[in-house]
Amino acid sequence: MAEVRVIESVLRAGQEVADRNRARLDAAGVLGVNLMSAPGSGKTTLLQQTIPALAPARCAVFVGDLQTSRDAERIAGSAAAAVQINTGRGCHLNPMQVQLGLDETPLDDLAYLFIENVGNMVCPAAHTLGEHCNVALLSVPEGDDKVAKYPTLFQRADAILVNKIDLVEHLDFDRERVRADLDQINTRAPCFDLSTRTGEGLEAWLDWLRQRHAALPAG
Amino acid sequence: MAEVRVIESVLRAGQEVADRNRARLDAAGVLGVNLMSAPGSGKTTLLQQTIPALAPARCAVFVGDLQTSRDAERIAGSAAAAVQINTGRGCHLNPMQVQLGLDETPLDDLAYLFIENVGNMVCPAAHTLGEHCNVALLSVPEGDDKVAKYPTLFQRADAILVNKIDLVEHLDFDRERVRADLDQINTRAPCFDLSTRTGEGLEAWLDWLRQRHAALPAG
Repeated sequence: MAEVRVIESVLRAGQEVADRNRARLDAAGVLGVNLMSAPGSGKTTLLQQTIPALAPARCAVFVGDLQTSRDAERIAGSAAAAVQINTGRGCHLNPMQVQLGLDETPLDDLAYLFIENVGNMVCPAAHTLGEHCNVALLSVPEGDDKVAKYPTLFQRADAILVNKIDLVEHLDFDRERVRADLDQINTRAPCFDLSTRTGEGLEAWLDWLRQRHAALPAG
Repeated sequence: MAEVRVIESVLRAGQEVADRNRARLDAAGVLGVNLMSAPGSGKTTLLQQTIPALAPARCAVFVGDLQTSRDAERIAGSAAAAVQINTGRGCHLNPMQVQLGLDETPLDDLAYLFIENVGNMVCPAAHTLGEHCNVALLSVPEGDDKVAKYPTLFQRADAILVNKIDLVEHLDFDRERVRADLDQINTRAPCFDLSTRTGEGLEAWLDWLRQRHAALPAG
């Protein structure tokens, strides 16, 4: 019984910290976006293109990785603030790490906070951080069976990006299979085809972000 | 203090079960191979090609996924035995699941047991199952920075497969960067370029497996 109590109190503490993170973002009028995907789906490249395209709106980025600060360095040039969170062996970001990031980040004049989670289709989907919306990336080379195989991630998503769509001609990837699998588990989230190489689909993604930002409660 | 004791006893129990799994494989002369990678790196397709190519040697496969039995179904035709282990929300296979799989699998006349872990570059690397060797797959579309970003997986690997090498002409992927990063953390494991689409590199991988099988202790 003792074990169960410990786990419950850890989970409850996590939810409380996530709620506080969300309240800080709400008060500052900052849209918090939690980006989740397998390693190498293109989260960092997407942010490299998204952040300048949202200007003059200002963006901050928290980047979760086991090691290295490569991803944060790639984004730092265009972001108003970039925080690298190294998790060591940790397989997802947790709300306490996001809280520490918020402590480091002036929220005034920011419009967006992108949280690039650890590359992992499983564990990040089970942890709320205080974000307003969750975005799942699926890249074409990963295969068209991933929605069915990792449903937790795609169920929780508020938007789904099918990235590297420019590679579809070189691969056996059935977009209809992805849409059919999504219809089984998540009909509320829009699904955008995207190529961070060619720019295809970027404008629809930016419009979605702007709409979500406009729908924030007045601070 | 109570929490720490619980965790230690869970870890020790896991190691004991893994040791027993390994002893069962040793006694039967079966090489246990734990395959780990991100989702969609090509583990299942690799096994679809590896298993028939190793004939007349007989292979069994345990496949870990959160949900669906698609991967096991894809392999079942060529394998002597195929066991799908659905983990629900579990982010890696554990030795108890492998033990249950072994209980279901006649080991007589088998030469290889391939354990296809849950698609995840983080958590599987922290858990031994009783395997003889660990194999890490990295696919070209994931990018050439993954060895540095997920070092635990690649440190533990006894062989590293760079898969989907046929896509290298369509992508910015520097093979030398992968090799340089591997030189920093793992110089004992061979690294094979591979394409499950064209068959390039398959023979070197099969040779490595045959050598590892020949090096098993006499049962």
